[in-house]
Amino acid sequence: MDEQATVPASHQDLVDRPLIAHFATVRSDGSVQSNPMWFGWDGSRIRMTHTRTRKKFQNVGAEPRVALSIVDPDDAQRYLEIRGVVESIDDDTGAPFYKALQERYGASGLPIRDADVRVVLVIRPTVILARSFSPGDVQATMERSAAGRSA
Amino acid sequence: MDEQATVPASHQDLVDRPLIAHFATVRSDGSVQSNPMWFGWDGSRIRMTHTRTRKKFQNVGAEPRVALSIVDPDDAQRYLEIRGVVESIDDDTGAPFYKALQERYGASGLPIRDADVRVVLVIRPTVILARSFSPGDVQATMERSAAGRSA
Repeated sequence: MDEQATVPASHQDLVDRPLIAHFATVRSDGSVQSNPMWFGWDGSRIRMTHTRTRKKFQNVGAEPRVALSIVDPDDAQRYLEIRGVVESIDDDTGAPFYKALQERYGASGLPIRDADVRVVLVIRPTVILARSFSPGDVQATMERSAAGRSA
Repeated sequence: MDEQATVPASHQDLVDRPLIAHFATVRSDGSVQSNPMWFGWDGSRIRMTHTRTRKKFQNVGAEPRVALSIVDPDDAQRYLEIRGVVESIDDDTGAPFYKALQERYGASGLPIRDADVRVVLVIRPTVILARSFSPGDVQATMERSAAGRSA
């Protein structure tokens, strides 16, 4: 249960930059949904802001296995595909995490609705695929990272 | 089974432009994956190129309910969230659909590997959420479209 994947150095910028992650969750009826989300990265965990009242919150409570993908806006052939588990859902009382994300994404000062029900989704990546494709290359390159597996 | 959602005029550009769709599918173990994908739109169906040999192909064969999200690269608060079903998987013999997508995405002439196993995923949207947020607005606006439901 401690499986932990890492972001390869070649794609580190995709988690350091304030890009949009597309977050896939399983719904209660077994179908999927995909939502664009802000995120933070601390070197081992992805964090997203959320509220206790929304559908995605209910989804990850029932099925903690999630996925997300992040594309380089300057090169759409360069991206990360991440699978992981929601390890915890922490209160964000007073919304300090949400405010930090606003700052990261250049949206400071926007009103924070639902501050009283804000939470932090903490996601532990279990599989990370890092893909890139240089014009002229016939083969795309892919790096795979997951604890206990070959890189 | 004929449920069909439409893209509102306000967000039509997001399917007309060659943007990246993030495509969520359910895996055989019930978890999800998210993949950046090229797509085409003909006014009622989303089409993606794929091969018979890859994981996503197996996923949608077992669970045809899929989701995707498309963000405006010029305004990340403006996006489409689409849920739908894979209605058919058509042969793309000789890869004409793949070549059309290459042209749409400005990547014409790149070598087409796997031309012999190329297929077209045809997706019928059942729910489309169109979201936008203008700075200064306190309320984000959302349009929902699905046949047989209130807009």
